[in-house]
This record gives sequence, C-alpha cells and structure tokens, in this order.
Amino acid sequence: MEIRVMENIFDENDRTADELRAKFREKNVFVINLLGSPGSGKTSLLEKTLGALSKKFSVAVIEGDLFTARDAERIDRLGVPVVQINTAGGCHLDAPMIKRALDSIDLDALDVLIIENVGNLVCPASFDLGETIRAVVLSITEGDDKPLKYPIIFKDAAIVLLNKIDLLEHTNFDLNSARSDLQSINPTVEIIETSCTKDSGLENWNGWLENKILSGSEKV
Amino acid sequence: MEIRVMENIFDENDRTADELRAKFREKNVFVINLLGSPGSGKTSLLEKTLGALSKKFSVAVIEGDLFTARDAERIDRLGVPVVQINTAGGCHLDAPMIKRALDSIDLDALDVLIIENVGNLVCPASFDLGETIRAVVLSITEGDDKPLKYPIIFKDAAIVLLNKIDLLEHTNFDLNSARSDLQSINPTVEIIETSCTKDSGLENWNGWLENKILSGSEKV
Repeated sequence: MEIRVMENIFDENDRTADELRAKFREKNVFVINLLGSPGSGKTSLLEKTLGALSKKFSVAVIEGDLFTARDAERIDRLGVPVVQINTAGGCHLDAPMIKRALDSIDLDALDVLIIENVGNLVCPASFDLGETIRAVVLSITEGDDKPLKYPIIFKDAAIVLLNKIDLLEHTNFDLNSARSDLQSINPTVEIIETSCTKDSGLENWNGWLENKILSGSEKV
Repeated sequence: MEIRVMENIFDENDRTADELRAKFREKNVFVINLLGSPGSGKTSLLEKTLGALSKKFSVAVIEGDLFTARDAERIDRLGVPVVQINTAGGCHLDAPMIKRALDSIDLDALDVLIIENVGNLVCPASFDLGETIRAVVLSITEGDDKPLKYPIIFKDAAIVLLNKIDLLEHTNFDLNSARSDLQSINPTVEIIETSCTKDSGLENWNGWLENKILSGSEKV
C-alpha cells in the first residue's frame, strides 16, 4: 500500500517534470537544480554566481526552504528575480511545486533558471524538476566519505563543487579519495574546488556553467 | 489520499515507538537519538563519547545509513556492540527498523543505546524512535541560520552540540545569534560547544550525558 502510493507520487512527479522540461526547451531556458546538505554553501555560491552570470544572461531563481524566506531575501538584495517556495517542513522540492512557481516567472524573458533545493543530501535526489543539469555542492567540512554514503544524489550530477576548500588544511578531508569515489559513482562528473570566502575556483565554475548554457547541454 | 497514507505511516511509527519506549523503560535502558546533517560530525562525536561512556556503562550503538557500513565499522573498532541499519536510500530511521535491530541486541545487559540516525536535518525529526532524549549535532561550518531554517529537528532536542567549534574563526558563524534562535525555538535546550579534533567541550557533553543517564531523564 505505502509502496504503491510512493510509486504514484514518483510517477506524477515525473510526468510533471517531463512537461516542465518540454516547456523549458521550448522557451530555451537552461535550468540548474542546485543540491547539497544544509550549510554546504549553496546560497553563498549562488550569490557569487549571479554576479557574473547576470551580466551575460537573464537569470531568475527559485528558492526552496522549509519555512523561512532568508535565502530568497539574500537573492532579492542582488536585484535578481526570485520566487520562494516554502515546503512547510517538506524535505524536497517536487515538479508540481516548480510548475506553480512558474506562474510568477516570465519564461519568455529568461535564459537561465536556478532552483536552489531544500538542504538535504537524500530526498531531493529522487525528484526530477525538469532541470537541464544538476549541480551538487559538497562542503569539504562534511567529510570525504559523503559520496559513497549518499551516492544517489551524486550519480546524476553534471558537476560537484567541493566547496569551502579554504578550510581544507583544518580538516582530514582527502581530496584524492573524494574525487576517485565521485568518479566511481559518476564517471563523467565534472569536479571543481571552490571557496566563496576566498573567491577561489569561482571563475572555473562560472566558465564551466557559461559554456554549458551556451551549448544548451541537456541532462543525460 | 497521499496525506491519509502519510498519517497512517506516522500513526504506525508512533505506535511502535511507544512500544519501544515501554520496553526501554522496563529494561532501564537510556536511549539517545543522535541527529544532524551529513558531515556534522555525529560519528566522530560518538567515537569520542564511547571512550568515556563505556568505562561507566554498558553501551550499544545502532548505525543508520543509506548504504555503507562505514560508520558501523568505526564503532566496531572501539569494541562497542553495533548494529547497522541500511535504509537503501531511505532518508530516516523509523521505529519498526529499530524494533527489528533489537533482535540483535541484549537489552537486559544494556544501560545505554545510542542510535545514530541518517544524516539529514529534515525527515528524521518526524519519526519518534522511542528514544529517551534527542541530541542534535550542528556543525558551525553549516552556518548560524540553520536553527530557524530547520526548526522541527531543534524543537524537541534535549541538547544541541555546536560542533567543529575549532573552525569558528574561519567562518562568519554568530554564536550569540545561533544560541538565541535555538532558545526561541526550544527554551529548555542545553547548548554545548564541542570540537572532536581539539578535544574541547567533550567533558561538558560527557558530564551532561552521564547526569542524564543516572537520573534516567525522560523525553518531555
């Protein structure tokens, strides 16, 4: 009984995600599903990314959070259009939520939509949002064992950002081991080391993203 | 339909949790549900805690993970009895999983059971495991906005460990703001700053825990 209902939920989500993907393609909007643990640094990275990105593209953001609008306020301060989705305790965004949020976004005027998912390495992995690519932020303070412990979220990522790399010397995080585990789960994954406090690696990430957007690269 | 089934799942979980709680009480076993984000430092803290705790009490551990037995192996190395639950992608432990794990644990010989939940600040909060207390580990590298963004998990915690406090100077984490937000969500919460790499705050945490165990303090 429970299992059948969960399958129905996934089926319904996938149908809506396919509908969204078709719409994004039709309107030529590149969509990034930004994923990671609570506190991995998704919003800080987004703030840094929007600075560079919005010089070249028309960008909007959807912010997913359980309750507050704190992250949306941070994005709003940058003058970037942002829609807040509060899940009221729910652990992930789903495609129907994105569909409703699109009522407030003019896709015709848009090049890039970034969806910051709820901070969670587990549940958001199972919900397709119709995105073009998935980007996962892994803070190196979380430990190098995370790829093997939470493989589902890393499996379909186009890119993994090893964030807060400036703290590396204060941790026992083994970069080689993390990279090799990521590649064993996802052989084509791009891996970039970033730090938002030291502004390092951000040009690589912005450059990679810009290329993806210009080539309109689809989710595999 | 979905909602009714979710209610049924919670009802079933709560019934089993009540059954477990009665059993733990009957056998005089103090049970800690250890919660936190991926990489907040739950297992490292547990390693440090078990050293002190197992000198005074008979302790066993249940490890919850999506796939690997890495954390259970770390506990096993300390000579502490440990049962691994793999959720196969599931985002939390539930009471029926704990009930099954108890088949491998002799409660008559036990004083303390520590359950390390799946790394997740959202879903585990909604599943009572029949525990005596909840302890939440929040790494200061996750940011001081986490209590207000993920209030459900902090609401019922007996204690919050502000972990990786040795990294404080490298972050913009505001201790006063985090403490005041935690107290607004949960006025009776105990808050202790800890670092497992610098061995700081661990005596406070171990002392607090020992007092709780000796007084057999119940979940409110």
